[in-house]
Amino acid sequence: MASGGSDKMTSKPHTTRRILLRVAYDGTGYHGWQVQPNARTIEGELNRVLTQLTGEEVQVTGASRTDAGVHALGNVAVFDTASRIPAEKFSYALNQRLPEDIVIQSSVQVDDDFHPRHCDCQKTYEYDILNRTFPLPAYRNTAYFLYGDLDLDAMRRACRAFLGEHDFASFCAAGAQVQTTVRTIYSLEVLEQPLTEAGRGVQSQQSPERLLTIRVRGNGFLYNMVRIIAGTLVEVGRGHIRPEEVEGIIAACDRAKAGPTAPARGLRLVEIKYD
Amino acid sequence: MASGGSDKMTSKPHTTRRILLRVAYDGTGYHGWQVQPNARTIEGELNRVLTQLTGEEVQVTGASRTDAGVHALGNVAVFDTASRIPAEKFSYALNQRLPEDIVIQSSVQVDDDFHPRHCDCQKTYEYDILNRTFPLPAYRNTAYFLYGDLDLDAMRRACRAFLGEHDFASFCAAGAQVQTTVRTIYSLEVLEQPLTEAGRGVQSQQSPERLLTIRVRGNGFLYNMVRIIAGTLVEVGRGHIRPEEVEGIIAACDRAKAGPTAPARGLRLVEIKYD
Repeated sequence: MASGGSDKMTSKPHTTRRILLRVAYDGTGYHGWQVQPNARTIEGELNRVLTQLTGEEVQVTGASRTDAGVHALGNVAVFDTASRIPAEKFSYALNQRLPEDIVIQSSVQVDDDFHPRHCDCQKTYEYDILNRTFPLPAYRNTAYFLYGDLDLDAMRRACRAFLGEHDFASFCAAGAQVQTTVRTIYSLEVLEQPLTEAGRGVQSQQSPERLLTIRVRGNGFLYNMVRIIAGTLVEVGRGHIRPEEVEGIIAACDRAKAGPTAPARGLRLVEIKYD
Repeated sequence: MASGGSDKMTSKPHTTRRILLRVAYDGTGYHGWQVQPNARTIEGELNRVLTQLTGEEVQVTGASRTDAGVHALGNVAVFDTASRIPAEKFSYALNQRLPEDIVIQSSVQVDDDFHPRHCDCQKTYEYDILNRTFPLPAYRNTAYFLYGDLDLDAMRRACRAFLGEHDFASFCAAGAQVQTTVRTIYSLEVLEQPLTEAGRGVQSQQSPERLLTIRVRGNGFLYNMVRIIAGTLVEVGRGHIRPEEVEGIIAACDRAKAGPTAPARGLRLVEIKYD
């Protein structure tokens, strides 16, 4: 992530620079990150707008190819350009051209060999569950609505089994092609936020009335992994899986043992930190 | 708001009941509350779905006819029906038929002569301002985005002038027809929420990074009144109006003296409390 400082050490003139974008988006209106024919995607919008801006055939490389309906506060994309636009000005220039549901949060120059997927990083995801009697319109695209009580203590106890390095094959969508299903989870917590804002207007005395956020940080995640962890923790919260069973579910390396894949809309990629 | 108890005192049989709905909605996709020809409105959707459900020609009466793009957590609508559906079941039955951006939060029977606009009440509105370097997609329809610093202390000092009973003609959209422009404001505050959730993914060190919420409670509000108060407080925050000038702006009873009308999207009707 050094700002291209190594270039100055070489006498060879560089005609292109590599720029890193941190990208926030509401994934509701998109068929996910990755370019697809005849479908609106985040990557496709970035390519279109960068090509428009620079006059070059720009193709970005993303850090995390999020699914349809999944959101991001800080996904990462890099691209190479010969344009003379100062690195930090790309954010402003792109935001003027992007739709309102994609906003570049920062743009910086990085080393020419920096690759957002082929280097060590920590990724943080969050999964929101709206847990109350009735849905709230403001959360309809960004949280999984669940009526009925969830045993938060049980969910929190279940979290412990996920910590550390494990083969997470039980938490990988069937058919995903990866070299290894071993990943390390640094932290996994279930946060409870009272609905101070949203709940005030509502007179219903029925509980619960809260937003639960499952926050997970790891060195990488398999396909659908966070959504399967969320779906499994919900099953624990409902009493269908006991917290002490989770260790065995992980050890089984069998997708069928874990809970269902929670809906895409509740998931957002919060942050990617590179070493 | 008593649950129709007085009916039992009369010997005359009642064939209809009056039902009160508390309605939450995201106003983004609607041309406001009030029915209009060839336009999608909250009231129109409620009428359509109630007519479908009961087989009667139902027309609701709303408490607050919010503008296009304005949201609600607890607007109130009443209607009369001869249907035998239990009062508290209407919320569930209607939510099954309503679009996702309108959700009934509760349904109760009220006195047959209860009128949601012709009785004493306290209304609470909130106005959200996203105050940071770049917009966030998740807030694009629910907050007014403002870059640059706002003097929160000055905004809070300016709030004091609004408290109590005043002629708020300076804070009423020109051309609005009302019998009186006198209203009472019980409380007006500017809350600051750090963007714990949204800000985490963003590496920018530039300040500010916060969500400001202007919360106001009163016995009623003139047309655009909360949005003009918000626009005026923003001018104070920017240093264009001094806090001590606000008293004179109110006293002038002249719309031209107050600040601009802040955008609809930042406004939500939180709650209506009937005495």
